[in-house]
Amino acid sequence: MFKFEIIKKSKRSKARVGKVYTNHGVIDTPMFMPVGTQATVKTMSPRNLNEIEAQIILGNTYHLYLRPGNQLIKNAGGLHKFMSWDKPILTDSGGFQVYSLAHKRKVLECGVEFSSHLDGTKHLFTPQKVVEIQQDFGSDIMMPLDECVAYPCDKKQVEESVNRTTCWAKESEQSIVNSAQNGALFGIVQGGCFQDLRKRSAEEIAALGFPGFGVGGLSVGEPQNQMFDMLDIVTDILPEDKPKHLMGVGFASDILGAIKRGADLFDCVIPTRLARHGSFLTLEGKTSIRQSRFEKDFSPIDPDCDCYTCKTFTKAYIRHLFWAREILAMQLLTIHNLRFFIRLMAKVRKEILDEN
Amino acid sequence: MFKFEIIKKSKRSKARVGKVYTNHGVIDTPMFMPVGTQATVKTMSPRNLNEIEAQIILGNTYHLYLRPGNQLIKNAGGLHKFMSWDKPILTDSGGFQVYSLAHKRKVLECGVEFSSHLDGTKHLFTPQKVVEIQQDFGSDIMMPLDECVAYPCDKKQVEESVNRTTCWAKESEQSIVNSAQNGALFGIVQGGCFQDLRKRSAEEIAALGFPGFGVGGLSVGEPQNQMFDMLDIVTDILPEDKPKHLMGVGFASDILGAIKRGADLFDCVIPTRLARHGSFLTLEGKTSIRQSRFEKDFSPIDPDCDCYTCKTFTKAYIRHLFWAREILAMQLLTIHNLRFFIRLMAKVRKEILDEN
Repeated sequence: MFKFEIIKKSKRSKARVGKVYTNHGVIDTPMFMPVGTQATVKTMSPRNLNEIEAQIILGNTYHLYLRPGNQLIKNAGGLHKFMSWDKPILTDSGGFQVYSLAHKRKVLECGVEFSSHLDGTKHLFTPQKVVEIQQDFGSDIMMPLDECVAYPCDKKQVEESVNRTTCWAKESEQSIVNSAQNGALFGIVQGGCFQDLRKRSAEEIAALGFPGFGVGGLSVGEPQNQMFDMLDIVTDILPEDKPKHLMGVGFASDILGAIKRGADLFDCVIPTRLARHGSFLTLEGKTSIRQSRFEKDFSPIDPDCDCYTCKTFTKAYIRHLFWAREILAMQLLTIHNLRFFIRLMAKVRKEILDEN
Repeated sequence: MFKFEIIKKSKRSKARVGKVYTNHGVIDTPMFMPVGTQATVKTMSPRNLNEIEAQIILGNTYHLYLRPGNQLIKNAGGLHKFMSWDKPILTDSGGFQVYSLAHKRKVLECGVEFSSHLDGTKHLFTPQKVVEIQQDFGSDIMMPLDECVAYPCDKKQVEESVNRTTCWAKESEQSIVNSAQNGALFGIVQGGCFQDLRKRSAEEIAALGFPGFGVGGLSVGEPQNQMFDMLDIVTDILPEDKPKHLMGVGFASDILGAIKRGADLFDCVIPTRLARHGSFLTLEGKTSIRQSRFEKDFSPIDPDCDCYTCKTFTKAYIRHLFWAREILAMQLLTIHNLRFFIRLMAKVRKEILDEN
C-alpha cells in the first residue's frame, strides 16, 4: 500500500502539505527522516524516536547488506521487526554509499562492482539485486540503484550517469515481486548541475510512472543556489501529485528552501552527527556545547523546545558530560537535534496550512 | 533526615529486610546502587534509572571534585538538581579513587595529597574537606575520608591505615555543618584481611555512633571466603540496627553471600562496565553477546526479565549493534544488567519476607 495525498498547496511557492500512506503508517509532509544507517538511528532507541515524533526513518542498503546481511534481516521478519521499529522505513539504493565508502568501485553496464569497506570482500550490486535486498528488508519506500557523480564533474560523465540511471530504473521496476505487503519503488533523478541533463533525467524517470521520486546527486559540494536551481527544474517536470525526496539534504536553510521548490521528504546525518560531536542546533545554526561560556549556564539549550533534553537538563550539565566523555551526552544532543528538525517541519506545515 | 528501619530479620542468617529513609526518598534494603561516577550512570538517563527501579545511585567524590567541581555543583543547586535525579544519592569518600587513580599519592597525618589523573594538578583531601565537598553536593549519604590498602598488605601498614581511618572519622564527624537538609555521614571500617584489625576498626568506628557504616577495603583481590570472614567479624560488632554498605562489591555471588552476613547496601561497576564491553548478566553469570551462536538468535537475552531491552530486542539485534559499534548497544545491555541486579535484590527481599 502506498498513496500520496496533497492536503494544501501554498500560493506563495511550490511548497505543499501532504500525507504519505504506507503499510506502516502515515507520514506528514514535508517531513525530515532521521538516518538509521545500521538498523539504528545512532544513540536512539525506537521509543526515543517515537517520543520526538519521528514518523519515518531511513536505512542504508549498502551497510545493512554487508552487515548483518539482508538474509538475516529477512529471517528476523524484516527490518522493522529486527530493529523493533513499527513505523515506515525508507531504504536508499546503496548507490551513494558505494560511491562514497566502498573500495575499488567499478561501474559496469549491469551494475556496480565494489569491495566492502569492512573486510575487502568483492560484491556486485545490480538493479535487480538492490530491489531484492530491499524487499528482504520489507522497506516501505525503496530506491533503485543509481549512479551518483562527484561535483564538479565532466559533462560527458554526468550524461553517462543519467543514461545508466534511467536504464537501471527500468530494470529495477521490472524486478519488483508484487505483493500486498510491497513497499513503493521510487525513481531517482540525477543530472549533476547541468540544466539540460537534469531536465532529461527528470523526463525519462517521470515517464516510467513511479509512485514517488528521489532527487539525487545534490548537496555533494555545489553552491546552494545551484542546488535550488536544479531542484526547481526537476520538480517542474516530475508529476506534481507524487512525493519527492531530496536525498541527503541538509542544513535547515537547505531544507526550507527546498520545500519552497516542491520537495517533501528529507534525510541527512547532520543533526545526529553534529550531536555526537557536541553541537546543538537552534534557528541560529549550530553551537558547540563545549564552550566555556556554558560552564555555569544552568538554562536549557532551548527554553522553547519540548524535547526531553531541554525539559530536563541544563547546558552546564550537558557540557560537563561532553568533557567527561560520557555517552549520555551524545544521546541527549541527538534527541534535541532531531526534535529540532522534526518541529521545524511541523512549523512549516502549519505555516502552509495557515496561509490565507 | 535519615532513619533505618528493620522490617524483618531472617532466621537462617544475618540477612534482613529494611528501609532507609532519606530526604530524597526511601530505599528498600538489601539494595544495589548503580554507580554514577561522573554525575551520570554511564549510558543511562535518569528516566532509564527510574524505569529499572533504581532507588539510589552512587557518585564519586574524587571525580566530581575534579570535574565539574563541587562549587559548580553547589551553584547548580546540588548534585541531584545538576544531574536531574531526585532520588537518594550516596557519595563515596574519594579514598578508594585516590588510592587507585590519582598520581603521586602521599598519605599525610592530615589527609592525602595527590595529583589529578586528568591534568596533574596537585590537591589535598582532608577529612574536613571531603565532608565539605559532599555537603556541597547535597548527598543523602556521605562517606568520610578513609585509607584503603592493597591486598595483600603488610600488617603494620594495615594497622596504620586503621588508626588513620579512625582518626579521620572523628575529624569528619566534627566537620559536619548541621542542617535539616543534611545527609547522613557513615563511618568506614577498614582492617584489610586481619581479623584483629577488622575487629579493632569495627569497635573504634562503632563507638563513634554513626547512623550507618561502610565496610571498605574488601573485594580488592582477596579470595571470597576471606571477604566473607572479614564481613562477618565486622557485622557482629557494628550495631545491628544501622545499615551497612559493603563498598564496591561485587558479583552476584558476592552480594548474595554478603547479604547473609548482614550487609544491606551494595555498589559496583560490574554490571555497567560489563554491559559496555558487550556482556550480559543472568543467574548463570556473564555472557558475551558477540558470540557467533547469537547471530541468528531471535529470542531476548532473558525471557523472564521485565526490562525494556528484554521486552523489545533480540540477541541477534543487540549482537549486530555491538559488531557495528553502535552506542545504543551499550545502553541496552546496561539497562538489562542493572535491572538484573535490582530484580535480584527484590527477589532476596521477598525470600526473606516470605520465610516462615
